[in-house]
Amino acid sequence: MSAPVAVVMGSDSDLPVVRSCLETLDSLGVRYSVQVLSAHRTPKEFHRFAESLDESAVKVVIGFAGRAAHLAGVLASLTVRPVIAVPIESGTLQGVDALYSTLQMPSGVPVATMALGKAGAVNAAILAVQILALSDEGIHHRLFEHRRKMTDDVLEKNRRIQADFNSRGG
Amino acid sequence: MSAPVAVVMGSDSDLPVVRSCLETLDSLGVRYSVQVLSAHRTPKEFHRFAESLDESAVKVVIGFAGRAAHLAGVLASLTVRPVIAVPIESGTLQGVDALYSTLQMPSGVPVATMALGKAGAVNAAILAVQILALSDEGIHHRLFEHRRKMTDDVLEKNRRIQADFNSRGG
Amino acid sequence: MSAPVAVVMGSDSDLPVVRSCLETLDSLGVRYSVQVLSAHRTPKEFHRFAESLDESAVKVVIGFAGRAAHLAGVLASLTVRPVIAVPIESGTLQGVDALYSTLQMPSGVPVATMALGKAGAVNAAILAVQILALSDEGIHHRLFEHRRKMTDDVLEKNRRIQADFNSRGG
Amino acid sequence: MSAPVAVVMGSDSDLPVVRSCLETLDSLGVRYSVQVLSAHRTPKEFHRFAESLDESAVKVVIGFAGRAAHLAGVLASLTVRPVIAVPIESGTLQGVDALYSTLQMPSGVPVATMALGKAGAVNAAILAVQILALSDEGIHHRLFEHRRKMTDDVLEKNRRIQADFNSRGG
Amino acid sequence: MSAPVAVVMGSDSDLPVVRSCLETLDSLGVRYSVQVLSAHRTPKEFHRFAESLDESAVKVVIGFAGRAAHLAGVLASLTVRPVIAVPIESGTLQGVDALYSTLQMPSGVPVATMALGKAGAVNAAILAVQILALSDEGIHHRLFEHRRKMTDDVLEKNRRIQADFNSRGG
Amino acid sequence: MSAPVAVVMGSDSDLPVVRSCLETLDSLGVRYSVQVLSAHRTPKEFHRFAESLDESAVKVVIGFAGRAAHLAGVLASLTVRPVIAVPIESGTLQGVDALYSTLQMPSGVPVATMALGKAGAVNAAILAVQILALSDEGIHHRLFEHRRKMTDDVLEKNRRIQADFNSRGG
Amino acid sequence: MSAPVAVVMGSDSDLPVVRSCLETLDSLGVRYSVQVLSAHRTPKEFHRFAESLDESAVKVVIGFAGRAAHLAGVLASLTVRPVIAVPIESGTLQGVDALYSTLQMPSGVPVATMALGKAGAVNAAILAVQILALSDEGIHHRLFEHRRKMTDDVLEKNRRIQADFNSRGG
Amino acid sequence: MSAPVAVVMGSDSDLPVVRSCLETLDSLGVRYSVQVLSAHRTPKEFHRFAESLDESAVKVVIGFAGRAAHLAGVLASLTVRPVIAVPIESGTLQGVDALYSTLQMPSGVPVATMALGKAGAVNAAILAVQILALSDEGIHHRLFEHRRKMTDDVLEKNRRIQADFNSRGG
Repeated sequence: MSAPVAVVMGSDSDLPVVRSCLETLDSLGVRYSVQVLSAHRTPKEFHRFAESLDESAVKVVIGFAGRAAHLAGVLASLTVRPVIAVPIESGTLQGVDALYSTLQMPSGVPVATMALGKAGAVNAAILAVQILALSDEGIHHRLFEHRRKMTDDVLEKNRRIQADFNSRGG
Repeated sequence: MSAPVAVVMGSDSDLPVVRSCLETLDSLGVRYSVQVLSAHRTPKEFHRFAESLDESAVKVVIGFAGRAAHLAGVLASLTVRPVIAVPIESGTLQGVDALYSTLQMPSGVPVATMALGKAGAVNAAILAVQILALSDEGIHHRLFEHRRKMTDDVLEKNRRIQADFNSRGG
Repeated sequence: MSAPVAVVMGSDSDLPVVRSCLETLDSLGVRYSVQVLSAHRTPKEFHRFAESLDESAVKVVIGFAGRAAHLAGVLASLTVRPVIAVPIESGTLQGVDALYSTLQMPSGVPVATMALGKAGAVNAAILAVQILALSDEGIHHRLFEHRRKMTDDVLEKNRRIQADFNSRGG
Repeated sequence: MSAPVAVVMGSDSDLPVVRSCLETLDSLGVRYSVQVLSAHRTPKEFHRFAESLDESAVKVVIGFAGRAAHLAGVLASLTVRPVIAVPIESGTLQGVDALYSTLQMPSGVPVATMALGKAGAVNAAILAVQILALSDEGIHHRLFEHRRKMTDDVLEKNRRIQADFNSRGG
Repeated sequence: MSAPVAVVMGSDSDLPVVRSCLETLDSLGVRYSVQVLSAHRTPKEFHRFAESLDESAVKVVIGFAGRAAHLAGVLASLTVRPVIAVPIESGTLQGVDALYSTLQMPSGVPVATMALGKAGAVNAAILAVQILALSDEGIHHRLFEHRRKMTDDVLEKNRRIQADFNSRGG
Repeated sequence: MSAPVAVVMGSDSDLPVVRSCLETLDSLGVRYSVQVLSAHRTPKEFHRFAESLDESAVKVVIGFAGRAAHLAGVLASLTVRPVIAVPIESGTLQGVDALYSTLQMPSGVPVATMALGKAGAVNAAILAVQILALSDEGIHHRLFEHRRKMTDDVLEKNRRIQADFNSRGG
Repeated sequence: MSAPVAVVMGSDSDLPVVRSCLETLDSLGVRYSVQVLSAHRTPKEFHRFAESLDESAVKVVIGFAGRAAHLAGVLASLTVRPVIAVPIESGTLQGVDALYSTLQMPSGVPVATMALGKAGAVNAAILAVQILALSDEGIHHRLFEHRRKMTDDVLEKNRRIQADFNSRGG
Repeated sequence: MSAPVAVVMGSDSDLPVVRSCLETLDSLGVRYSVQVLSAHRTPKEFHRFAESLDESAVKVVIGFAGRAAHLAGVLASLTVRPVIAVPIESGTLQGVDALYSTLQMPSGVPVATMALGKAGAVNAAILAVQILALSDEGIHHRLFEHRRKMTDDVLEKNRRIQADFNSRGG
């Protein structure tokens, strides 16, 4: 794990959501490692992985899990690196089970919880990059470019919609 | 841990609820051990404890935890003993956070979830005793007595309420 | 009912979920009986069935029901055998109706509630087997094998995903 | 049970809510019987009671229960008399557990569900009386008087509040 | 309105659910009238209709409505006939909006609320018939037949499922 | 009703919340009338009141109601004046029943829903005043003053808290 | 912005819902402008737009946004014009996230919240027109026509459904 | 703002919760500034403050707000510094309104959401310190000490509870 961001998912069925995170990291030029490790199905391997983080080059950890989502909490209990988590919708409870399991950590062990699903996956990447940018000028610069592009996209859509509608109604 | 039931709570603030469980075990004549161990604040000690269960005399584990309640899930991931859990209400979400964190375990790692709060604490004790009773005639007998007493209590209340009301209205 | 596990479903429309339970019992080599009996539509036959459990060879009961899911609660009120229940999603309320009807049993009559849907159905089977394993060495051994296989499956997936991603990003 | 309305509560702790029902029946001059019987703690006595209703003088049944509230559903499965139910708030889930357990009956076995708590208890009495009034002129008349009084009470309050406020602001 | 049951729906888009009610009434040989009237879009016509019920041959009213479902409540405020209501799922809130709008009537004005959707529609018909059966022997008899048939259907399914599974596993 | 704002509450128990609305109207110098009228307990008087609004001097209507809160919806169905509503918390469901009953109006009959409780009561008054201000310069001016004062209050609190904390930590 | 109604959406993906609003404004002959501006992605442009409203010809603002829907709240904090908002369902939480983010404004800054989705979009248009109608006779007249047509549509459906059903059952 | 952590609360009524955050920062020896600024009541001052962050010495921002909690989202839209948020319970919705308003940010603008209430306030401080510790050895060391102390506290409680209970039951 020589990359600064460690991405961990509880099941490979989370991959469609995780991919939005990885693509955002790629687009911002930040390296990452990827693991499939389950807090419940591979508890010993998972524990060893989590314990190793403080001695590794990893600076930020991003966890993805659904249902009784203990993954990020267990990570956060075994490292002092910032842990970001994305609750995954799975099954019938709209992801509220994953959200509460991730968010409601006891005092002393924080998990930085993102929105449910793909928006959260993108934002986990951006938050990780915002943290790295505090001590890396190049990343800081790319972050600004990324945000400017996002703004420009909305403004371009605004121009188009005004062309469509406002001649008529406005 | 020579007792057949191991009771684990995530925080000593859970004790008022846990006590209902211990008293029920006492009244049914079943021995137990008690631990305060947090999946999040004492992750290494907790992991060691959970790993030791399969080699111990413990036959049933009962876990109590609130909020992002990972305690029972981590126990269940590290032992094949039946794990019973009681979600504890704590904070503003009515215990729904603890309930979902406890209940929604992924396929492969069951946690026998009880009702929220004291009713769940009593029932965790009774379920543990029902399991032990499968191979212990004495416990089986005491379980029947316990249930008969519960029924008699309701029937006695029925007699009283009928004396109060039915002369009037019935 | 000479089998140690009795599986009861409230409607044959629950069969797609129930099947995950039966297949897990099959794979662990544990025999079971199956019933379709409704607490609401066949109340007398259901009552007789539940009353007969304490005198039968059944050691663990597993109930499946949706909506106002009274099935497991009525079973638990008439037997001292451990009763495990799986809430079934049906209709518009995401299965929360079945969950609350199953979980929130009053003190004195426990129902071991599993996760909603298929994960819960698999876990009901495993919990039943964990209980039987307390007094059956053969079952205990098969349970360990089952869990090792589950762990190996995740680790194999981890190897594959690392081959896919980490050369690139890590 | 010679009275036309049978009131059943699952626990004598429901009495503060039940009393609002009984007082409304008293004020409308309708006789009733009262029982404390639990579907879970006195299942055999409860079953016998429910089975006896079709052969009795009871015309309407009113059930009160909290948590996993199976009481009214079991009654409705064993009688063709109209069954009215009032979910009782108890514990941490705001009574939503009792509401869903009562309301979400499967097709074929109706339970007429009222609002949670005391408003529901009063309305259970009035609905029972509306049903009896269909074939009893005296009750029909008293029902109209009851409603007129309710309307007059609100109109009197309106007169007072207008005297207080409208001289000032209106 | 010479029929004893008046069925009112707030929108003709409710018809797929309403049909389950009408078919049940047909199968039990009970006559009914049908209206599409909206408490919100045809308030004056709706008010006149509701006011006319007490002077009509209608004995029971069944209302269907979704969203902010005021239909049954307004009916119940203008007649002393028993009013039964079925909340309709519509839009994004799973029908909980319709359920709460229907159920949570203030003290004095009861609405007999049924389960959401088609199960509720069938049960509204059966509850109406249970009320009519109190003073009509023929209807009472048909109601018993209907219930026996329901029980026999489940028992037949039980026989089939036991033939399928129990030779194998039991 | 010569005042431009008509305030209607479903019960005089709503008065503690309503008062926050009236005081805000007073402070902004806008006249109002006040009524206690229940859509369910005084349906005929309420209907007549609502029908009269279009011919009156009332320009904006503000309704307060709890539980199955039909008050604002019935008002909105009988007038084309803008109707603002404040859901009142009452009973066990946190006011979500009143919120959904008020908010989820069908297409064609809008109700401008405010936040639950006192914040909503204040805001109902301000929204009514914002509407009146569109054609009244004096009111428009007072509205600006009111907002400036609100901003100044927060800035004053900011100065105080900075004096308290920032010398220490900042 | 010379049109009296300003419609703002947070994303062009909201357009299918927004269209129901625009069509209603068209059908009532009221002019409008349309913007795509995001409180989060174009914060500076959005702030400038909101600040400009008080000096413009805009009389009513309608905002559309999903998820953490801050759009209408930010608008309302920067203008004294009435702000109407429609929460958009997006993602897994049924739109409850957008609803609470829109509705629960603090005291002092009202947002007139409409129902979720298309019904809310239509109603936002009608409420805007109701406000404009207070000082415009022509709009007032068209509003009455619109409502009459809505009533006639329901009554026509009632005639048809009675032709279908009542000959049979009634 | 020369301190590395900027703490912003939407109202001084949030202070009891905020204090838990400030005390944790104090105990970890990290300096902070404190502001009371409301996204809704002081929108212009708030906007200026948020815009100034990228040019300041602030490295991490922590926001506190209740109800329609837009504070952290607006901050995050105007700075690339990591923004941490604590939803505050206020009013009747258990803080779920604040939680959803804070958490469900659109893709592109992350907010690191903490648990509701005081546990979240403590964890916001710790997460901020975890971020600062990535480039500050002294802070990193104090963080480890803080965590060790937390673990020791639980283990001490475990010793005491075992002394109390296990002699008796174990």
